[in-house]
Amino acid sequence: MSISLNGYIQADDNPDLTLERQKGTFKTEALSEVLYDGPYTLQRRRDIAKYVEEHKDLQDPVPTEFLSREEKIENAARKLVSIRKHFDNVVKDDDPAEAYYFYSLCYHLDGNPIALHNGMFLPTLFTQTNDEQKDKWLNKAMNLGFIGTYAQTEIGHGTNLRKLETTATFDKSSDTFILHSPTVSSTKWWPGNLGKASNHAIVVAQMYIEGKCYGPHTFMVQLRDEKTHKPLPGVTVGDIGPKFGINTVDNGYLRFDHVRIPRTNMMMGHTKVDKKGNYEKPIHSKLGYGAMVFVRSAMTTIQGIYLATACTVAIRYSAIRRQGNINPGKDEVQVLDYQTQQHRLFPQIARAYAFFLTGKYVSKMYNKVIQDLSEGNADLLPELHAITSGLKSVVTHQVGKGIEQCRMSCGGHGYSEASGLPLLYAVAIGGCTYEGENMVMLLQLARFLMRTAAAVKSGQRPMTSHGHPSQFDYFFVPGPRYCLLDHVTTQNRPIRVSIEAFEHVARRLTLRAYERLKAAEKKGRSEQDAWNDTAVDLTKASRAHTRVFIAKTFVHAVEEITDYAVAKVMTDLLHLYLAYEIVEIGSALQEDGFMSGTQFAHAQKQVYMLLEKLRPNAVSLVDSFDFDDRELHSVLGRRDGHVYENLLKWAQNSQLNKTEVLPAFDKYLGPLMKEARAKL
Amino acid sequence: MSISLNGYIQADDNPDLTLERQKGTFKTEALSEVLYDGPYTLQRRRDIAKYVEEHKDLQDPVPTEFLSREEKIENAARKLVSIRKHFDNVVKDDDPAEAYYFYSLCYHLDGNPIALHNGMFLPTLFTQTNDEQKDKWLNKAMNLGFIGTYAQTEIGHGTNLRKLETTATFDKSSDTFILHSPTVSSTKWWPGNLGKASNHAIVVAQMYIEGKCYGPHTFMVQLRDEKTHKPLPGVTVGDIGPKFGINTVDNGYLRFDHVRIPRTNMMMGHTKVDKKGNYEKPIHSKLGYGAMVFVRSAMTTIQGIYLATACTVAIRYSAIRRQGNINPGKDEVQVLDYQTQQHRLFPQIARAYAFFLTGKYVSKMYNKVIQDLSEGNADLLPELHAITSGLKSVVTHQVGKGIEQCRMSCGGHGYSEASGLPLLYAVAIGGCTYEGENMVMLLQLARFLMRTAAAVKSGQRPMTSHGHPSQFDYFFVPGPRYCLLDHVTTQNRPIRVSIEAFEHVARRLTLRAYERLKAAEKKGRSEQDAWNDTAVDLTKASRAHTRVFIAKTFVHAVEEITDYAVAKVMTDLLHLYLAYEIVEIGSALQEDGFMSGTQFAHAQKQVYMLLEKLRPNAVSLVDSFDFDDRELHSVLGRRDGHVYENLLKWAQNSQLNKTEVLPAFDKYLGPLMKEARAKL
Repeated sequence: MSISLNGYIQADDNPDLTLERQKGTFKTEALSEVLYDGPYTLQRRRDIAKYVEEHKDLQDPVPTEFLSREEKIENAARKLVSIRKHFDNVVKDDDPAEAYYFYSLCYHLDGNPIALHNGMFLPTLFTQTNDEQKDKWLNKAMNLGFIGTYAQTEIGHGTNLRKLETTATFDKSSDTFILHSPTVSSTKWWPGNLGKASNHAIVVAQMYIEGKCYGPHTFMVQLRDEKTHKPLPGVTVGDIGPKFGINTVDNGYLRFDHVRIPRTNMMMGHTKVDKKGNYEKPIHSKLGYGAMVFVRSAMTTIQGIYLATACTVAIRYSAIRRQGNINPGKDEVQVLDYQTQQHRLFPQIARAYAFFLTGKYVSKMYNKVIQDLSEGNADLLPELHAITSGLKSVVTHQVGKGIEQCRMSCGGHGYSEASGLPLLYAVAIGGCTYEGENMVMLLQLARFLMRTAAAVKSGQRPMTSHGHPSQFDYFFVPGPRYCLLDHVTTQNRPIRVSIEAFEHVARRLTLRAYERLKAAEKKGRSEQDAWNDTAVDLTKASRAHTRVFIAKTFVHAVEEITDYAVAKVMTDLLHLYLAYEIVEIGSALQEDGFMSGTQFAHAQKQVYMLLEKLRPNAVSLVDSFDFDDRELHSVLGRRDGHVYENLLKWAQNSQLNKTEVLPAFDKYLGPLMKEARAKL
Repeated sequence: MSISLNGYIQADDNPDLTLERQKGTFKTEALSEVLYDGPYTLQRRRDIAKYVEEHKDLQDPVPTEFLSREEKIENAARKLVSIRKHFDNVVKDDDPAEAYYFYSLCYHLDGNPIALHNGMFLPTLFTQTNDEQKDKWLNKAMNLGFIGTYAQTEIGHGTNLRKLETTATFDKSSDTFILHSPTVSSTKWWPGNLGKASNHAIVVAQMYIEGKCYGPHTFMVQLRDEKTHKPLPGVTVGDIGPKFGINTVDNGYLRFDHVRIPRTNMMMGHTKVDKKGNYEKPIHSKLGYGAMVFVRSAMTTIQGIYLATACTVAIRYSAIRRQGNINPGKDEVQVLDYQTQQHRLFPQIARAYAFFLTGKYVSKMYNKVIQDLSEGNADLLPELHAITSGLKSVVTHQVGKGIEQCRMSCGGHGYSEASGLPLLYAVAIGGCTYEGENMVMLLQLARFLMRTAAAVKSGQRPMTSHGHPSQFDYFFVPGPRYCLLDHVTTQNRPIRVSIEAFEHVARRLTLRAYERLKAAEKKGRSEQDAWNDTAVDLTKASRAHTRVFIAKTFVHAVEEITDYAVAKVMTDLLHLYLAYEIVEIGSALQEDGFMSGTQFAHAQKQVYMLLEKLRPNAVSLVDSFDFDDRELHSVLGRRDGHVYENLLKWAQNSQLNKTEVLPAFDKYLGPLMKEARAKL
């Protein structure tokens, strides 16, 4: 064909990459529109990227991997001033998605000085304050009159809020709360932007009134003087030191030595303490819940983007990298032609699409739940909470693994920061720990699954009041006893059969965990000990259910694609996704005889067959993620494929190349060698 | 018991940790002696550690994670001077193992200025020079009269040596070779210590004589002036920039613009070029081979130590970390009590021991092969090469995964550099790529396996001339048709049955790959294309064989333990290792009906049962690795368990804590907030 369907070809690109792009069988633009909700938002992405490209003050003077932490932090503060200046020119109608993209182009992955201000401080102010407090703080906070963070985690306490040790003791005589850190382990530890940037924090502390503990509550505390930025009396605050990633953020520690704040700095949106020390309970306690669910559902999309980024880098590099000969005498081959390379990378592309599309779906679910809540209906919230807990855990784990596969598939160059992949991994893998540690998350979903199992056993299917279909409905429907996978590959069969297989495993592992749980209880173990005895089985059930959920949303998303050529390649990718998952859980599928060995072998062959089928579209599939080079931040992943000359250029920024001879030579190595030579 | 078997208890330790140590059922000292070959070498380890502890000039002024790259490199050079000064006081009789431990205590993980000088430059000088060259260079090199490195990899060329582009062209008239980098992609890229520290390098280049290419050969090239350390004319050299880890090393790039060296700087130990340009071939070509095999066999031990380090940190921290309640009303529990935590960590302990012990065994095999070679017998070399290729790949992969499990099991604190685990991961995972990319390594073992499969098919078992038993013998012995695993847990049954199961899978996957390979060839695919079509199956066969090898060496090592209590706990650990592996390959075991679903379920239960059984010995098992706190380099893994106060102390080193208010406030954030407040 003379006109290429791939929109990323430009003159003077690396010819191997151009050739790959010419091979694509679908319009990349059409697939990008599926991902980014149509031509308008896709164009807006590109407008924003172009704007950033045209304004040097929004960019880094050198790639940030060459900066020290001090320099990173100063550079990030500088850019904040520019971002605020340009904001209204760039972001239309304060659209949060546009703002997010604008920030991410300017800051890339490694954090910024108001990340927690925007992500936690403001939302808490919105939801947990009363009208008076809103008047006092909101406008000032939204305009950056001060910078705040959210200080919850302590050095000795993470997930279990009830054991936080920081105290806020009410002193009636002065109408104040006294904030105090009684032990080393009560030191606030980890909150982002706490160390250096913030002058305010919302602090979570055990509230004491007249000697009685009312449990953890939130308080607005000023930490630093607004003018001098020095810590206020009684406040000890600082940076917690370097981390795996996100070193542009000053995660901090914080200690209080009897610091007094006005009583009215307690967040009084739902709970109240009056002058006399009378306590008024919150009406219902699930209001914090929504924010948590929001963050976790957003994480699915963000993690999908992380994996998509890694795939884009690895696939483009694999197209331009030539190494080894498949057939002697011929040129070295593109490493993308090796089956082992395809087997490493193509399933990651499939997962990146699956997570991206699942993230979009979950966001819709979230909006629906919020809508319901505003109408007084909280029925779907527990289900969404359960699903996002499982998703967060499964997606972050698979994304981390996938990024590393992508990185390693780039050989030595993947190990260089020039690839962008080491930092991408370090940032993405943090997701396994923050916002709820993954094992804890799986066990939260498992609680829901055990309730479902009890309902299955009792034959009483729970009703959701508004008649919404539930993501757990399949537990109440008997599936086929045996897997129906065979060699006939009519269009929809492998899809339905795969979903049935995933459902079967989820059903079986859930019921088995339930039975083991009950058996342990019957043996006299306490409910909690029995839960712990069964914990690994419970996490397996949660992963199995999450697999069902992702696969189904991926299937639905692909079914909705209207462009024929896009639907075709995405169906191939979906088939790869499904076959790869079947191979991954082959043990569980065969354990009860649901799947035969022959069927399992067939699924493995399907994977190989699909790798070959997808090969010509590999580059077009990653191009369709529509990542700007600035967003990719990778010498290996450049759109134009000119890798080697740019690696050499990139390395010139190295701190070690500022002088030809380092002080280490003059001080140590030079004299050492000279002395040795003199002795010879 | 009043006297504890665990030798690591001291007064005022964290009481949880002391309690754990008192629970141990075996003498840690006795297990340490198994690992470190008896009481003498164990004591030597401790003497060396004590010496380093007593000499400040061998230590870092602040933990190196707080240093910039420039500072790291200068600090490392400073320590080199001290190491040389103390060397003879510390290391007895130049013992290489003692020297290695001494260096690793001083330098920890992140590299040093003569890593490549010691690891590659000197060994190449020893093996590839003639007597004249030895006289000229060896003494000077060994005494650090100059510092050298080994420059092979190019920016566009890694594994495939035949395609290196750097040229060394013989000029008869001046009796010199002219070294030249004709393209960007020919730039030498990655060699350690090349960028800044070295003034010499052994360079691999395509040798041309009278227009004819003789393939890659090695040349001694001076890069920098001995006095000024400035690059010599025609030499462009520098640092390649920051990497995932090992940033204390100046991995470098190097370009030649027609640089002349004397003809006699070509390494003439095996190959010769005379004044007239006559070329003399090497007698046999496998001499480089040995060094590669040596490095790969050493990697098994080193990677085992990496995983053992991560386990020590995670297990000790899990013993002192209390979080959540299993039973309400009671104290928070040690996270080590959670089944999910045990399931994450205990199999890693088992693998760390398996790799450590396998590493020792392979070193013995290596010494035997070297002995044989000196007697003119190279029979075992191909087998050892095949085995170490597979080991390198499987071990580095599992160690990387294991370290990350350990890191994540430490929750948020695992993400901090204070844990030591981010750097440990970044360094260890490099092993998947360097010294032969893992996929390439698996395919090298697969070549051997395919030859074995051909021999099985033809019924002709190959003979090793000296009658050594071969690690591939089991391919020629029919195993049981069905797995004999049952609920009877007599002492040796599960061991034999597990090994049989691993052998069965290795045999089946190897023969299946062979059949698919031959079937593809029959369909008319070229030998090379058929190989590529079957590549993923071939890697699976290689992993399966490597599993057999590791499991068998682990079994043998445990069988040799004479201390009853140590043998008992190590047998439990071995059983966990075996059961965990069976669960991992459950698909392959069930695929052909070798193992039933019931048996598979039984193996899963065995894992849970063994977690419980090993729980009281968890801390003693990691203590027995006998890591000094300096070696662990982890606030979380400290012997005394005093984590939180030391985290706080550690963080005081942060660059950001040098001043209370950063320049970023005065320059940017302060004015931004002031302006916003003024507008309100």
